[in-house]
Formats: sequence, C-alpha cells, structure tokens
Amino acid sequence: MTINFEGRSVLVVGGCGFIGSNLVRRLASLGARTTVVDSLVPWGGGNVDYLYEVRNEVTTHHFDVRAAGRRRRLFRKHQTIFVVMGSVGHVESMRNPKADLLRNCAAHLGLLEVVRRENPDARLVVTGTRQIYGRPQRLPVDETHPIAPTDVNGVHLFAVESYYRLYHETYGLRSACLRLTNTYGPRMSLQHACYGFAPTAFRQALRGEAIRLFGDGLQSRDFNYVDDVVEALLAAAGLEMERHEAYNLGEPAPTSLREFCNVLTSFAPAPLEFEPFPPDRRRIDVGNYAASFDKFRRSTGWQPAVPLHEGIRRTVDYYQDHPQEFVAEPIATSRTPPTPEPRRASDAARSAKPFPSRNVR
Amino acid sequence: MTINFEGRSVLVVGGCGFIGSNLVRRLASLGARTTVVDSLVPWGGGNVDYLYEVRNEVTTHHFDVRAAGRRRRLFRKHQTIFVVMGSVGHVESMRNPKADLLRNCAAHLGLLEVVRRENPDARLVVTGTRQIYGRPQRLPVDETHPIAPTDVNGVHLFAVESYYRLYHETYGLRSACLRLTNTYGPRMSLQHACYGFAPTAFRQALRGEAIRLFGDGLQSRDFNYVDDVVEALLAAAGLEMERHEAYNLGEPAPTSLREFCNVLTSFAPAPLEFEPFPPDRRRIDVGNYAASFDKFRRSTGWQPAVPLHEGIRRTVDYYQDHPQEFVAEPIATSRTPPTPEPRRASDAARSAKPFPSRNVR
Repeated sequence: MTINFEGRSVLVVGGCGFIGSNLVRRLASLGARTTVVDSLVPWGGGNVDYLYEVRNEVTTHHFDVRAAGRRRRLFRKHQTIFVVMGSVGHVESMRNPKADLLRNCAAHLGLLEVVRRENPDARLVVTGTRQIYGRPQRLPVDETHPIAPTDVNGVHLFAVESYYRLYHETYGLRSACLRLTNTYGPRMSLQHACYGFAPTAFRQALRGEAIRLFGDGLQSRDFNYVDDVVEALLAAAGLEMERHEAYNLGEPAPTSLREFCNVLTSFAPAPLEFEPFPPDRRRIDVGNYAASFDKFRRSTGWQPAVPLHEGIRRTVDYYQDHPQEFVAEPIATSRTPPTPEPRRASDAARSAKPFPSRNVR
Repeated sequence: MTINFEGRSVLVVGGCGFIGSNLVRRLASLGARTTVVDSLVPWGGGNVDYLYEVRNEVTTHHFDVRAAGRRRRLFRKHQTIFVVMGSVGHVESMRNPKADLLRNCAAHLGLLEVVRRENPDARLVVTGTRQIYGRPQRLPVDETHPIAPTDVNGVHLFAVESYYRLYHETYGLRSACLRLTNTYGPRMSLQHACYGFAPTAFRQALRGEAIRLFGDGLQSRDFNYVDDVVEALLAAAGLEMERHEAYNLGEPAPTSLREFCNVLTSFAPAPLEFEPFPPDRRRIDVGNYAASFDKFRRSTGWQPAVPLHEGIRRTVDYYQDHPQEFVAEPIATSRTPPTPEPRRASDAARSAKPFPSRNVR
C-alpha cells in the first residue's frame, strides 16, 4: 500500500543527518506535517543546514533521544515514525566500543520505551545495515544469511534491529527495518572520514586528492543513491507490518570500488592509487558484497531508479555548489541559517579537526 | 586437551555468582591460583558467602568491571579467564532495558578492552544463553539455529557473544562461548525471582508453598546441574580456540517442567498449581526447548554426569543446610564471613525486599 503523505503527521528521528535530511526534504515536498528530532551529536553527521530550505515546513527539536522520556509528549500522535539515527562508524566503533553502544543501543531503547507507551499505534521504519552479515558466506546475500558482523558497530546495529522485532512481539509496536547497503548522495558527511568508502572517495575527488584503493579495488559493493533510499523508506511506511520484518536494499548488479571511482573521477578528476590493505582495515573488510533485495521488491515494488552515473553526477554537482561541506579548512559561508537554529554550519566548520587520512570501506 | 589447573593462574569474573562461585570452589579443589573479580551488584545474585570455605585459597576484588581500565594490572598474567558475569533476568530486561544494556554489554566491553591490551595471550571462556535462539524453529536446537531472542536480555547476550568473536577476529583474543540452558543447583539465588523457572520452583517448594505452573506444565527444557556446567567450563578452557566458537550445553533428553517439579516435590513436598499464562509471560515464553550439545561433546567429550533426580536431591540438601538463602524474612546467620569482606550475607538479607510473586521460566 502506498501512503499519501499529504497532511500526514510524521516524525523523523535523526532528521538532520544524511539520510534523515534527504527524507525530511522529500516529505516536505509531499506535504507531510513533519517533526524532526535530532541530537546533533558532534561528528555525528547531523547539520541543520541540510533542512534550511524546508525550515518553515518542519518543526525541529534538538535533544538527546536517550532522554526521550522527558519530552514524551513530542512522540504522540505521529502516524509514521522514521528512525534514521545512530552511529555507523566501523573503525570508530572498534576504537571506542562503549561510545558506539550508547550512541546506538541506548538511543533506540530510549526511543522505543517512549513510543510504546505514548504512541503504540504508530508505524515505525528503522534503518539497519548490511554490516550485520559480515563477510558474505554466499552471494547474493538475502535476509536469511547468518548474522556475523565484523565490527562492534554491526553487533550493536543487529541488537537495535532486534529491539524493534521484540517490541512488536511484546507490545505490538509495528515496525519494519531496511538494511541499507552503501548509500551515497548529497548531504553525506564529508567532514570526517568514519562514514565508509563513498564519502571518503567523494571528499578526495572533490579536493583533487588521490583516491586510495586497498588491494586491486575490485571488491564489489551495492551502491544506492540516497533518493532511492528515501523512496524505499516511504514505501516501507506503507507495509502491513503484521510482524516485524527486515528487508535488504541493494542494486540490481553490484559495482566494484574501482568502477565507482572511475565514474566519480570522470566528473571530479583525481588520480587513483592502489595500496596494500592496512592491517586494521583488512580485519574488518568484508570482501565482495551483493545483496538480494527481492523480498523488499516483492513487498513494495521498490527498485533503484537512479543509475550510478546519474547519482554520482548529481552528488558532485551538489558538493560543487556546497564547497563548505568538504573543504579541509573552514571557510565563510553565506548559507548560514537565521538565528533560531541552534547550530550553524560555520560553527561546525570552525571546530572541525583536520581531516584524518583514513579510508574506510 | 584437558588442562591441569594445579598451580594455574585463573581469573573468574563474576566469581561470587551462582555459576561463578561453584566454579571457583572447584578450581580451589584443583589447586588453581584463582583470582575473583565481582562487582556484587545488588540483586545480581553474587554473594561472598558462597566463597567462604575457600576464602583462603582465593584472592577477591570487588569493583565495577566497566571501570576495569582503572584496575588494569589485575587482568595481567592469568592463563585462563572465565567470564561468568552479567544479568540474566528475562522479565527484568523488558522492564528496564537500559539497565540490562549497561549490566551486560557495557560490562563485557569494559572487560574485553582491558584484556586485549593487558593480557592478549589469555584464553577466555564466557557463558552465553540458549535464550538467543528464541522460540525454537526446529528441535533439537543446534548452534546454527537462527538468532531471534524473545527478550531484551537475549538481544544483549547475543551482542556480548558477538564481541568475543569480534575480539578474536580483530585482535586475536582467544575465547569460547558456552550457551547455557536451564542451570540449577546450590548457590542459585533464591532471594529474588528474576532467575527463571528452577530457582522459583525451588524457593516455592522449600518454603512449602504451591509451585505455580503455567499452562499444562508440559513445556520441555534442558536442565543442567551446576556441577556439570562447571565441568563444561573447565573442559572449554582446554579448547584450541583457533577461532571463536559457541557451544550449546544441554541434557541428553529434555525434561518437562511438570516432571522437574514432581522430582523436586518428592524431596521438598509442595503442591503443584496449574494456571493460565499471564500475558507478559506468554509473550516471552519460548515453548518447548531441547538442545543438541553434540558439537561440544565432539570437541571435549563432555556430557552431563549428574542425573536430574540426584541433582535435585543435592540441591534440596544444600538449601536445607542454608535456610538463610531462601527465607522471605531475614534471619540471623552464623555463616557471616570475617570483616575483610566488603559485604555480608546478613546485610543483603536485611535489605531484602519481600519476595515478589513472579514465576518466570
């Protein structure tokens, strides 16, 4: 069932982040009455600038969702709740596993405890990750593939997904989970390097630096353009949710990292460099990955609509229009939103540490 | 390979708890040099009384293992580390999911971060739970059964188990996990009711109260006497641990709850009462359960040695000798250990709340 979002009351938790902000902008275009909750965790990827153009159509609240119980009224009445928050740094999660635990597990528990009490009739759509599968034991990976994540972040995101299943079985709270694969597009955070292959490559290309590939660069991935992911989220909201289900996203044919870079550098010229895997990357690298998204396609009809070439072109265009989002040194920006907004892009840029030379995929 | 524990340096984290204390007592009888770390969390089941008879053979430290980094020297040099800590309350975990998160996930991460740095050559044996499988999709349940826990505690204990796998893959830290099924025996906590079917039934029978069974009482379980579990832990310590593996424990043929109670009441007479499932129990009940422990038997030769009848008899004998461990009202006890111990059984009894009428299995 496709939902008509016009006039629909929708809550987006994590709505200032990469995927969240693209979703909120789309919801605004559909006429939804959208409320955003985002804690704007430093280095978390959230940025109020991303909602600047839709600021008059969206109500935003910035607080720590782990303390959602203190703002319980905010969670009432919304018919659909999109939960697109959380930390997704693979290497970071190994460096600071307890921070990852609190950013992910504690945050979702805080949210779920409030929603099950205050808004038990809502339908929730939550984003998960392909990282929970770890190194594929077979390709393509479908939803029955064993769960064996290669990093702490994957462990926690499987726990998070399990909470949603449990809260359905125990309290009847309806939800669906989309297991995202490599997502790229406008508003992915390029200011720090803990967000995987695509943002790192885009940042390097946009700055004209060499894009470093580990090994031969032929490792395959499924890349989804963020607009396709947004459409998937909207489609998921219309699912029956008679029971909690998790669904893979993916692309019809996987792309190698090298292929991705070749398209990217055709729009943003930069050299490619191949180097051996550093030990800490080798350990958490999952090898080739390709998802089956048949289950979600059968349930909703969704499939990616934006080809790689087109998605990369749009993304490069976006960042060329928004250079403050990838430069190393803070620059002045005329896009600073008006004063009611609590944080400004220029503040974020000013406090930005130099970009560390990480390259995570 | 069977380890000779005589003179071996062993650390037991959670060594004042039910399984931990039985393990520590056994290690003392084998001549191991045993160090115990236990945070003695209120209501966590730990009790320094359990180690009273071996207090001169064991060094104990009581602190929060989530702050293990502040006591890092304690974790060095031990050849074997048994990790038998954590919270296992199913209903409790649904009532307070965040407390369960911190008791389990944060505690194991705190420990692992210290051990990987301070003692990377140690071999760890950690206890997991059959609860991670949820409602069995097939019987008997082997280790490849899908992971679908029915409560927050099960979600967190799977995350915990995954940490150990990850820390092996990432840092080479060697470990094995035993997925315990219903374990019973001396020193299981009967002072509060969040520890599942066996302790609840023992407490009711020992007090001569009716044992309440939900439904027809024919739900099957695997029951292991704690001495058998201790032998399994010792056997696991001798595994090669070339990679992290998880192993089911179990009994050769499952036992129905009613059968268990019939044996129990033959030693401690009490009536049985059958009543419909309360809704909150129905939701997290897993139905019939029977494990295959073939993988562990093949790897170590372990199998249960204590028949149900004998195990229940020994357990009843123990509690009849230690009535302060199951009475509702605090009583004076002459087993109070000498002053160096930071907490005494009589203190615990004094602060004990009346026993809530829960009946969890």
